[in-house]
Amino acid sequence: MSLVVVGSVAYDGLETPHGKVDRILGGAATYIGLAASFFTDVKLVGIVGDDFAAEDREFLAKRSIDLEGLEQVPGKTFFWQGVYSADMNDRTTLVTDLNVFADFDPKLPEGYRSAPYLMLGNIQPALQRGVRAQMNGVKLTAGDTMNYWIKDYRDELLATIRDWDFLLINDSEARMLSREYNLRRAANAILDMGPNTVVIKRGEYGALLFRRDSHFMVPGYLLEEVFDPTGAGDCFAGGFIGYLAEHNCDLKQGHIDRVDIARAVIYGSVMGSFCCEKFGPDRFRTLTREEIDGRFREFREFTEF
Amino acid sequence: MSLVVVGSVAYDGLETPHGKVDRILGGAATYIGLAASFFTDVKLVGIVGDDFAAEDREFLAKRSIDLEGLEQVPGKTFFWQGVYSADMNDRTTLVTDLNVFADFDPKLPEGYRSAPYLMLGNIQPALQRGVRAQMNGVKLTAGDTMNYWIKDYRDELLATIRDWDFLLINDSEARMLSREYNLRRAANAILDMGPNTVVIKRGEYGALLFRRDSHFMVPGYLLEEVFDPTGAGDCFAGGFIGYLAEHNCDLKQGHIDRVDIARAVIYGSVMGSFCCEKFGPDRFRTLTREEIDGRFREFREFTEF
Repeated sequence: MSLVVVGSVAYDGLETPHGKVDRILGGAATYIGLAASFFTDVKLVGIVGDDFAAEDREFLAKRSIDLEGLEQVPGKTFFWQGVYSADMNDRTTLVTDLNVFADFDPKLPEGYRSAPYLMLGNIQPALQRGVRAQMNGVKLTAGDTMNYWIKDYRDELLATIRDWDFLLINDSEARMLSREYNLRRAANAILDMGPNTVVIKRGEYGALLFRRDSHFMVPGYLLEEVFDPTGAGDCFAGGFIGYLAEHNCDLKQGHIDRVDIARAVIYGSVMGSFCCEKFGPDRFRTLTREEIDGRFREFREFTEF
Repeated sequence: MSLVVVGSVAYDGLETPHGKVDRILGGAATYIGLAASFFTDVKLVGIVGDDFAAEDREFLAKRSIDLEGLEQVPGKTFFWQGVYSADMNDRTTLVTDLNVFADFDPKLPEGYRSAPYLMLGNIQPALQRGVRAQMNGVKLTAGDTMNYWIKDYRDELLATIRDWDFLLINDSEARMLSREYNLRRAANAILDMGPNTVVIKRGEYGALLFRRDSHFMVPGYLLEEVFDPTGAGDCFAGGFIGYLAEHNCDLKQGHIDRVDIARAVIYGSVMGSFCCEKFGPDRFRTLTREEIDGRFREFREFTEF
């Protein structure tokens, strides 16, 4: 079943302890879309400048990602540059040039509007709400946000996530949004804000999923080498929602049982872990569904008792 | 099957965001012994001063812990005082008065020497080695250590852990000992030092177990309130080794399969989580095996997919 993915498409300059790349395809929608494309049809909504390379468009198209909603306008594509600390747990932003992304006003092509699944990458909450309003009969809405919107656009954000089924954020964002330090309490406070399910991403420490009556925990996959963690959280989201779309899961019909949702968390973790194995989204150039399913089985082997 | 536990028996002064207690029973051997006592017969080896309270002795004895090896000498019992940060992930030591513990030279009562299981709490590596030498036909040796011994007694520590079956340490200690940041590599380097199995404790993030051919991961139990984390790592060790002793596990006979060892990690996590629910070791005054097994089942429910 089709999934609409909305968010940034960008170029990134990255420096990790393993190397440096001046300019590589990036952006939340790119990572979400690539990860989800291993599970379901993806329809991308984003904006790029006239510097967006044909080979990057081809890379996305080769993964069968529908690019009708990727608007191209005069100007430069969003550019972000950052450098990671030695342990990769921190990164410092050196450059954020919004460029054409500053005027992003997502418009869904006609053929996108009846898609049943919607994943809203981290953008201005009002824009996220506007996208959802353009959909007809969306079955399942998931979204991400960040500290900037939580801090300075709180009311707008609360009005937006109220209608979401899934909120996927990291632990510091969950604490900031809920004003609770303890993650179990934080999750309960966020569930009171509307979402059916909260997924808290903890990077190398794994992920937690909370619903009103249950929760699910998974440790992080242990890579021998974390090459570049850029995009791992977005790939988690892409694997998570992609799996739910693949399995035609539907909250309103009560079709998401505990096993489906737990497996979606595992597939999210799997996609996040693969993302870290190469610079930017490069791992997805060669990744196969067989490798993905193999790592899913590894997760079972490493956590079953 | 009997388990000999060696280490500090102390009084602690504790301050957490939830309160303050001037003097409460503590010490690694106390926590290990209490946690293990829910699984197996425990024989304690430690030293206390003449200020050691009859009620604390009774508390241990009521948990059927054999105290023949708890030497009492003139002077004061080891005293430690610390204060926790708001998020409980850091603590600052205010007082460390070794007192009679400074001259601890563990001597095993005759009746302890044929016990099949040995858990060496964090003490000087040469003392740990001396204890093991007093045992006859010990089936399984596990031990803990800390940054101080890793840094300043490295050779002595390496000569000691070479003979251990299990090394249980936290993540920063594993990195310091192995000189590797990545935990998978760190564990492999430590396995090369001798131990059959390395367990890396990560506090609220759970635990990892590594053997030559496999590893096992468990996320941390999500408490609604961490009251006082003092002793949680030692309780993990007590639950872990206690479970193996209860099930008569024997590495030399090849009796520890993947399931046994994984369940030992879960029981370790269970005991660590209970420890945090009250000040010091107070939770163990009322805890029941039924509650322990209930939380074990919860772990399954929260992690199975």
